[in-house]
Amino acid sequence: MKKVLVILSGCGVFDGSEIHESVITLLHLDRRGADVTIAAPDIEQMHVVNHRTGDEMKEKRNVRTEAARIARGEVEDLAKVKGADFDAVILPGGFGAAKNLCSFATKGPECEVNPEVERVLKEAHEAGKPLGLICISPAIGAKLFPGAELTIGTDRETASALEKMGAKHQDRPTEEIHIDRERRIVSTPAYMSAERLHQVDEGIGKLVDAIMTMTRTEKPQTVGAKN
Amino acid sequence: MKKVLVILSGCGVFDGSEIHESVITLLHLDRRGADVTIAAPDIEQMHVVNHRTGDEMKEKRNVRTEAARIARGEVEDLAKVKGADFDAVILPGGFGAAKNLCSFATKGPECEVNPEVERVLKEAHEAGKPLGLICISPAIGAKLFPGAELTIGTDRETASALEKMGAKHQDRPTEEIHIDRERRIVSTPAYMSAERLHQVDEGIGKLVDAIMTMTRTEKPQTVGAKN
Repeated sequence: MKKVLVILSGCGVFDGSEIHESVITLLHLDRRGADVTIAAPDIEQMHVVNHRTGDEMKEKRNVRTEAARIARGEVEDLAKVKGADFDAVILPGGFGAAKNLCSFATKGPECEVNPEVERVLKEAHEAGKPLGLICISPAIGAKLFPGAELTIGTDRETASALEKMGAKHQDRPTEEIHIDRERRIVSTPAYMSAERLHQVDEGIGKLVDAIMTMTRTEKPQTVGAKN
Repeated sequence: MKKVLVILSGCGVFDGSEIHESVITLLHLDRRGADVTIAAPDIEQMHVVNHRTGDEMKEKRNVRTEAARIARGEVEDLAKVKGADFDAVILPGGFGAAKNLCSFATKGPECEVNPEVERVLKEAHEAGKPLGLICISPAIGAKLFPGAELTIGTDRETASALEKMGAKHQDRPTEEIHIDRERRIVSTPAYMSAERLHQVDEGIGKLVDAIMTMTRTEKPQTVGAKN
């Protein structure tokens, strides 16, 4: 049974993990018999957004505590998780990935990545484990793995921000994925471009399929562990 | 294009709508081309639960505002929705259905149903529209439609509470549904009995299939509109 780490960033598209993408990721992993661990940083959300009006709300919420709504219970503290302990790591999207896991939403290409997110993803990557990056999460991959080939949807400005970080943007429709075979990173645009929920499901289904297949193959020997 | 109303009760299994069930319902409806409207009562949640610890949190959240996290935006005020305007109505589960949409979680068979929930479901039912009740939501059906045949999972006490309200409990596995053809009510146990997410998906997929099929057929003439 393959162990897959899913990193969440809260609960709700505008200030946390995109809920549809997160549930669909968990569903496809469950169908494929993965042993899933859900983790999140134990930090305050950048802010709380009223999802009906788009207005900021005058309250505070914790990323890990809110992620537990999607997890239906326990969420590991990301600070206590080791990336190399898993066969793969997947990040769903939602603004939380760009507000709580890194500062891409406010700083663009000059963003910083949360240190625990950076550590866990680099540990997994350096151990040759495949990474799945959904929706806006490839922004984190662009920052951490220079030169990575990544999807980010059809918005030119966002794609350009990724390229400024050194990524090679891959234009793919919502139902498709791109596999960076050298770096073992799979990405799909999901709600960066989706018009319909079933398209998100199709793209994430392919991403999970690719990730699970890669967990059964070795990292190509031509690639150094730390490139 | 069939118009389907989905009534949510917040966002999170312990104090609102069960997120997995809600997203899976929306996904199956989208695959089948339904025109979905999401609505929720514009009321305060019974309480707010920390989903990691199970403890009550000292804050207040609004059912409709939190439901917007699942909806990714607009959620209609249930008070302004007419049940007969839709071809079908579906209620996902989660404790929110038993805490915010009715008081079953605290009062059992003596529960009261939120007046707007009662009005909308009765309007739809009396106009012959099929109702889909998932997980704990059949408790609402038991209260409103005496004699209804409903699933509620394997917990004896909960099943007995439904029967005290006059329902005929139907023991079905998570992957299955029961159709009360006379009352045009479809139900499935989902997380009342599920051990795995893909089982929930299977049951809800069948429920949505049955509901969409029923929207294309007339209510049997042998059944009075108000029985």
